[in-house]
Amino acid sequence: MSFQNPVFIPGPTNIPEALRKACDMPTIDHRSPLFGQILHPVREGVRKVLMSDSAEVFIFPSTGTGGWETALTNTLSPGDKVLAARNGMFSHRWIDMCQRHGLDVQIVETPWGAGIPADRYEEILTADTAHEIKAVLATHNETATGVRSDIGAIRKALDAADHPALLFVDGVSSIGSMEFRFDDWGVDIAVTGSQKGFMLPAGLAIVGFSARAMKATETATLPRTFFDVHDMSKGYAANAYPYTPAVGLMNGLNEACRMLLDEGLDNVFARHHRIAEGVRAAVRAWGMELCATDPSVYSDTVSAIRTPEGFNATEIVTHAAETYGVAFGVGLGEVAGKVFRIGHLGSLTDVMTLSGLATAEMCMADLGLDIQLGSGVAAAQDYYRSHRAARKREAA
Amino acid sequence: MSFQNPVFIPGPTNIPEALRKACDMPTIDHRSPLFGQILHPVREGVRKVLMSDSAEVFIFPSTGTGGWETALTNTLSPGDKVLAARNGMFSHRWIDMCQRHGLDVQIVETPWGAGIPADRYEEILTADTAHEIKAVLATHNETATGVRSDIGAIRKALDAADHPALLFVDGVSSIGSMEFRFDDWGVDIAVTGSQKGFMLPAGLAIVGFSARAMKATETATLPRTFFDVHDMSKGYAANAYPYTPAVGLMNGLNEACRMLLDEGLDNVFARHHRIAEGVRAAVRAWGMELCATDPSVYSDTVSAIRTPEGFNATEIVTHAAETYGVAFGVGLGEVAGKVFRIGHLGSLTDVMTLSGLATAEMCMADLGLDIQLGSGVAAAQDYYRSHRAARKREAA
Amino acid sequence: MSFQNPVFIPGPTNIPEALRKACDMPTIDHRSPLFGQILHPVREGVRKVLMSDSAEVFIFPSTGTGGWETALTNTLSPGDKVLAARNGMFSHRWIDMCQRHGLDVQIVETPWGAGIPADRYEEILTADTAHEIKAVLATHNETATGVRSDIGAIRKALDAADHPALLFVDGVSSIGSMEFRFDDWGVDIAVTGSQKGFMLPAGLAIVGFSARAMKATETATLPRTFFDVHDMSKGYAANAYPYTPAVGLMNGLNEACRMLLDEGLDNVFARHHRIAEGVRAAVRAWGMELCATDPSVYSDTVSAIRTPEGFNATEIVTHAAETYGVAFGVGLGEVAGKVFRIGHLGSLTDVMTLSGLATAEMCMADLGLDIQLGSGVAAAQDYYRSHRAARKREAA
Amino acid sequence: MSFQNPVFIPGPTNIPEALRKACDMPTIDHRSPLFGQILHPVREGVRKVLMSDSAEVFIFPSTGTGGWETALTNTLSPGDKVLAARNGMFSHRWIDMCQRHGLDVQIVETPWGAGIPADRYEEILTADTAHEIKAVLATHNETATGVRSDIGAIRKALDAADHPALLFVDGVSSIGSMEFRFDDWGVDIAVTGSQKGFMLPAGLAIVGFSARAMKATETATLPRTFFDVHDMSKGYAANAYPYTPAVGLMNGLNEACRMLLDEGLDNVFARHHRIAEGVRAAVRAWGMELCATDPSVYSDTVSAIRTPEGFNATEIVTHAAETYGVAFGVGLGEVAGKVFRIGHLGSLTDVMTLSGLATAEMCMADLGLDIQLGSGVAAAQDYYRSHRAARKREAA
Repeated sequence: MSFQNPVFIPGPTNIPEALRKACDMPTIDHRSPLFGQILHPVREGVRKVLMSDSAEVFIFPSTGTGGWETALTNTLSPGDKVLAARNGMFSHRWIDMCQRHGLDVQIVETPWGAGIPADRYEEILTADTAHEIKAVLATHNETATGVRSDIGAIRKALDAADHPALLFVDGVSSIGSMEFRFDDWGVDIAVTGSQKGFMLPAGLAIVGFSARAMKATETATLPRTFFDVHDMSKGYAANAYPYTPAVGLMNGLNEACRMLLDEGLDNVFARHHRIAEGVRAAVRAWGMELCATDPSVYSDTVSAIRTPEGFNATEIVTHAAETYGVAFGVGLGEVAGKVFRIGHLGSLTDVMTLSGLATAEMCMADLGLDIQLGSGVAAAQDYYRSHRAARKREAA
Repeated sequence: MSFQNPVFIPGPTNIPEALRKACDMPTIDHRSPLFGQILHPVREGVRKVLMSDSAEVFIFPSTGTGGWETALTNTLSPGDKVLAARNGMFSHRWIDMCQRHGLDVQIVETPWGAGIPADRYEEILTADTAHEIKAVLATHNETATGVRSDIGAIRKALDAADHPALLFVDGVSSIGSMEFRFDDWGVDIAVTGSQKGFMLPAGLAIVGFSARAMKATETATLPRTFFDVHDMSKGYAANAYPYTPAVGLMNGLNEACRMLLDEGLDNVFARHHRIAEGVRAAVRAWGMELCATDPSVYSDTVSAIRTPEGFNATEIVTHAAETYGVAFGVGLGEVAGKVFRIGHLGSLTDVMTLSGLATAEMCMADLGLDIQLGSGVAAAQDYYRSHRAARKREAA
Repeated sequence: MSFQNPVFIPGPTNIPEALRKACDMPTIDHRSPLFGQILHPVREGVRKVLMSDSAEVFIFPSTGTGGWETALTNTLSPGDKVLAARNGMFSHRWIDMCQRHGLDVQIVETPWGAGIPADRYEEILTADTAHEIKAVLATHNETATGVRSDIGAIRKALDAADHPALLFVDGVSSIGSMEFRFDDWGVDIAVTGSQKGFMLPAGLAIVGFSARAMKATETATLPRTFFDVHDMSKGYAANAYPYTPAVGLMNGLNEACRMLLDEGLDNVFARHHRIAEGVRAAVRAWGMELCATDPSVYSDTVSAIRTPEGFNATEIVTHAAETYGVAFGVGLGEVAGKVFRIGHLGSLTDVMTLSGLATAEMCMADLGLDIQLGSGVAAAQDYYRSHRAARKREAA
Repeated sequence: MSFQNPVFIPGPTNIPEALRKACDMPTIDHRSPLFGQILHPVREGVRKVLMSDSAEVFIFPSTGTGGWETALTNTLSPGDKVLAARNGMFSHRWIDMCQRHGLDVQIVETPWGAGIPADRYEEILTADTAHEIKAVLATHNETATGVRSDIGAIRKALDAADHPALLFVDGVSSIGSMEFRFDDWGVDIAVTGSQKGFMLPAGLAIVGFSARAMKATETATLPRTFFDVHDMSKGYAANAYPYTPAVGLMNGLNEACRMLLDEGLDNVFARHHRIAEGVRAAVRAWGMELCATDPSVYSDTVSAIRTPEGFNATEIVTHAAETYGVAFGVGLGEVAGKVFRIGHLGSLTDVMTLSGLATAEMCMADLGLDIQLGSGVAAAQDYYRSHRAARKREAA
C-alpha cells in the first residue's frame, strides 16, 4: 500500500495529520480523571457540531450502523411502527435493521436519486390520527446516490400533522460537512460516525438524543446492552464508561471538533460546497449526469455520476485502483454498475480534488468513454479560481 | 498527560511501538482488495492464537462486551436457558446482559476469589436431562479478582453429563496471554477484545465460533444487526464488510498476531507467568494476600491484592495516579475498596514491573500501611534474576 | 500548516508513510549492538544504491552541503587546485566553499541551462601536464536549472587526458532518482543527502569514497573534525560513532534503501523519467520552455520552467503557496524571477503530479499568463495513460 | 528492538510523546513563510532556555560536536591560543578538535572526577598579560565523569584577571536540565545539542553567541562553510537557511522549549535535582562511590559510579543490555572499566528511575558484587517519597 494518493471514497476520508496524531495515543487509565478530560469536552464538542444546546451525546466504540441500532433499541419496542423512505442503499439498510428488530416499517419507496418526499411523510403522518407511528426515519444524505434530503421540511411535515413521532436522522455522511441543525430542525436522534465529517478512522458511533428521545428510553423494551444509553450515561459524572472506551479515537474526535469549530461550521459547509461545485462542474463538462435528480438535492459530500447505458461504471473504480492507485466509490444496490461515486468530504482541498478528477478522466478514456482529457479538470479549475478558498496562515 | 510511566491496569496494556505504528494508518478503500490483504490474514492469525484449526473468526468494531452480545444474540432465542457462574464483576455483567436479552440464567453463585466450580456445573448439567440449557458461560479469567478458571474441566463436565449445550468462554483477559485452547477444550464461542493480550487500543470485539455455534445461528431469534455474524461473513469472499471496518486496528491486530506467533504462544504464556510470579513474590514479601484463594486459580495477567481490614484499597490507586502518575486498578463490585489490582499482561517487562512494585510500595507507605520499602521489589528481583527472560536479539 | 497537498519542491520530497515511521523511533543506546544493526546495513544499502561494490560509505548528521565539505576537507590541502564548472546555483556554492577553504578553483563558466562541457574539462586536464589539478568537481544534476550533466563523459575526459585527479560528484538531487554509477563512472567521491532520492527528512550527509579518495585522506591537511572520515570509520567495527548519530534518520535511510532496491534501481529511474516526461509534456502544451537547453540534459527530478519576458516567475510560487497551499520552487541566482521549478522526484505519483500541474495552470491564469486551463494536464494525462506505471499489488 | 524499557544513558534521553510527534512532520517548503513560523520562535525559545536576553542563536543540522566546531571556526584563527581544562572524555575531545584546527591549547590537566579549577584559570589568565589567550573553554558538565563545573566562578576568574578572552561553554549535557545562565555568567558561546535537555533525537547543534563572539567572527580566519554563522544568519529575515534545514527536529525543538518554559526553568532544574538525589541515595545505600569527588560537583544529569577494584564496570552495562534490555552508559577514556554511568536527564520520572536502579542492582548481583537487592531502590524510594514531585494535572 503506497498511501500516496488521496482517497475519493465517500468516507472514510483522508485523515488530517493532527487527527492521525491525536488518535495515536499511548494507553491511559480509562477509569481515571485523565479520561474525563477527554470524555467531557468531546461530548460538548459534538453537541456544538450538531448545533444543539442540549442534546445528550453518546459515543460508542462502533460505527454509524451501531448508531442506528442505538437509536432504535433505546427508544422503541417490538412491533412499534416507524415511517421511513427508501431512496438508496443506506436508507434501505436502516429499514432492514428495523425489520430485523421486529419493528413495523411503513416504507415510502422513493426513486434512487430523489430526496425524501416530505409531503408524502406529511400525508401519512396526518392520516395516522392514532399516533401509531412512533418514529420517523430520515437519511439526511444518501451516500449511495449523493442525495441530500431536507430535514427541516420533514420537521415541518411532523409539525403540520401535529404528530408526536420522534424524528431520527442518519447524518452519517452530512454531519460536520453539510448544514445540520439538531435543535432548529427538532431532531430527536442524530446518528453519525467518526470517519466522515469528523475525518477520523472508523470506530465510533456518535449519537445525539433530544430530551424527548431520552424520555422514550424509559419505556422502550427492545433488548440492548452494548448500545444502552443509560449504561453509558450512568458513569459520566465519575468519568466512567460501561466498558473500555476507544480512548485514542475519542481524543481524535475532541481534536476534530476543535478543528471544525475553530474553522467555523459555516466555513466548513462553504468549503464542502465549493469543493463539490468544482466536481459538479467537471461532471457537466464531461457531458455526464449525476444520479441526484435535481440541484436542490445535490450532496456536498459525495457525487454519484451516471455512466452511459451499457457501460459498467464499476470498471472505472476497479481500473482507477489498479492502474492509478486511486480509490473511488462503486454504485451500490439499484445503481450498482450504473454510477461511480466521487467522495468529496472531510479533509480535501481543491488541489487534491483536481487530481481525482484528472484520474477519473484518464480512467474513462482508458475504458473507451468519449471524454476529452482535461475538460473536467478545466471546468473545476475555472470554478475554483473564481471561487477562492478562504486560506488560513496557520502556525505549526 | 505525560505518558512517561507504564500503566499497570489489567488492560488496556502498554502498546508496543510496532503496534502503535501498525494502527496509525492512512485511509484505504475498505471495499478494495487492499482491505482483503488485512482481513484474511487477521482472521487466520486470530484463529492460530485461539489454538484452533477451524474456528470462524469475526472481528467487530466494538469491545469485549460487544463480543458477549455477539455470542448471545447470534445463537440464542428469548427465553433460552443458560448456565453461568458469578465469581466477579465481569461474570456478573455477562449474566446481567443475558437477563436483559430475555435469557433465563441459572446462576452458580461462587465466592469472589474462587474459580468456576466445574463439579457444580456437572451436577446441574447432569440433572438437566431435558437439555433445556442451551449454553454454558464461563469467564476464563475474572479480571476483577485475578482468578483463572479451568475451562478444560468445564468441558469435561459437559462431556461427563453428555450435555449438548454450547460452551461460551469469555477470554477477554486471558487470550493471547495465558493458555487458551479453543479446539482442545471444545470451546464453542470465545470472546476477547483488542486491548488485552493483543496489546492494542480498545475498539475491536474478537470472537471465534465453532461449527456447532455457527449451526446455532440458523435458529437463533434474538434480534441482531450490528453484531450479526452472517452479515459479517457474507462479504468475506469479496473482501467486504457490512459497514466501515476499523481498518487501522485490524492492521494492528494482524501485526499483533504475527508478534505473538513469532514469539511462540508457549513462550508468550511463559513470559506472562514469569512476570506474574515476580508480582506474587512481592505480594508475599509485603505480607499481603491475593484475592485469588488458591495458587491453582492465580491469574497470570492480573493480581488483585487484599489490603488490611479498615483500609480503603482504592486510596492506593488514587494516590498512585495523583502522586506518582502510575495507574493501577481499583477493586470492583463486592471487592471494591478491599483490593487493588496490578495488571501484568501484554507488553510488560520485568524491569517495568519492578517500577510498578516500587510505586505500590511508596503508595502503601505514604498511606500508612506497614510496608518495608524495597521489600517487594527485592523479592521480585530475586525471582526475575533466577528465572531469566528469554531475550531475542532482534533487528530493527 | 495543513499538510494536505503534496509538495513540488525539488527536495525535500514527499515522505512515504513507511519512512515517516522508520524515522520516528524511540531512543536506543547508540553505543550498543542495536545501533550496529542499523549502521552496517545502511552503509551496505547506500553502497548498492550508488551502484558500487567497494565505496566506503559515511553518513553524517548534516546535509549535502556538509557532504561537500567532507569531500573537500578530507582529501585536499590548502592551495590545492580543483577544476569545476559553474552552471547553476549549486555548482556556484560548491565553488564558493572551495574558495573559502583556500582551494584554487579553475572555473569553467557555463551557461545556466547547459550541462558541464566535458570537452572543455578534457582540454584543461590535458593541458595540466604537471597534474596540479587534484580534483575535478561535477554537479550531476543542477537543481537550480533542472540540468543533468554527463558524468560518464567527464570520466572519459579524465581518462583521455590520462589525468590522476579525483572525481567528486554532487549527486544530491540525482542519486536514488536518476542513473548514477559510482563504479562504472570511476567516481571518487559521491555526495548526497537524505531528503531527495532517499525521500527522508533532511539531516544526513551521505558520501561514498573510492579507494583512491580514501588514500588521499592520508595526506590532506585541510582542518576537519566533525566531518573527518577517519574518526567516523574508526569505530565502525565496534558499532561506534564519533558522536551521537541521528539514529532515527539512519533507520529511515536503511528502510529507504530497502524500498529502492526492492523496486529495482532501473525501475526507480524509469519511474522518475515517466513522471518527468509528463511534466515536460505539460510545459510544451503551455507553449513554454525549460531552462535546460536540450533534451540530452533534461533532469528527471526537477524542471525549471522559463516564464515570458517581463513576468516575475517567483510570483507563481508565492501565489501557489498563498492561494492554493502548494509549494513549487523559485528560481535562484541568475535565473531568479525567470524560472519557477517543479520538483518531481522521490515519492510522487502521476496522480499527484497532475494536481501540481493543474495548480500551476491556475496560478499562471490567475496571474494573467496566457494559459489554457487543463491544457498541460491533458498533455500529461495523455502521456501517463499511454505510458502506464508499473504497479505493485503490495501487502500492507 | 523492543523499546519497552526506558534508557538510562546520559543522552539521548527518553523522548516525550509530544516531541516524537512534533518531530514527525510531513515535508514543508523550507523556503516559505511556513518555515519562518518555526525558525523564529525556536531561536527565541532557545534564547530563553539559555537565560539570555540577547544571545544570537544558531541551529545547525549537526550535533554538539558540530557546535564545538562552530564555536572555534567562527571566532578563532590558526595559531590562536586557547585555555582549556581536561577533566574527562568530552573536554578531551574538544581540546583535540582545537589542536586539529591548529589552535594552541594551554591545557589544565585536572583529575577525572574533579571540576574545572577556576583558581588555576585565574592564575593563567592573570599571567597572560599580553592577552594571547583568545578563548577560554569550559565543559559545564563532564558527561564522562558526572562532574559539573562552576561556570560562574570561571567568569569571575576572567573578570579578576581583567582578561578579554571569550568564554566558550560546552553545555551539551547541562542546558535545559541544570542551571545555565548565559547572560549572568557572561558566556560568549554556549554549545548544546538536541538530544539531552531538549529531549529530542540527536541531529541539531544548538549554539548561542554573545555580541562579543559575533564581533570575533569578523576577523576569524579558520576555514568554515557548513558551520558559518554569517551564512546562517544572512537569510533569517527572509525565513531562509543556507541549505536544507532539519525542519521536523526544529519543530520539535520549538515544542521542547515551550515545554521547558511552561514548566518553568527553575522547576526543570529542581526536577532534575530530585531525580539525581534519589540515584545518589541509592549509590550510597549500595556502599559505592561516585566518580565525582565532591557534592559540590555532583551532576544532576548523569552519575558515574565507581565499581570495586578489579571489577570491570563495563560488564554491568553489557549485562544490563543483554539480560534486562536496559541501557546504561559505560566508562570512557581514563575511567573506562572503572565506572558505569546512569543518565538521569530529560524525560524521566522517579518511577522510571526506580526501575533503572532495580535493574542495576540485579546486574551487580548477577555479576557477583556484594549488593543487597532492593537496598538502593529503598533509599531512592525514601528520598522520592519525602521529596514529592510537583505534579501537574494536565489536559491531553
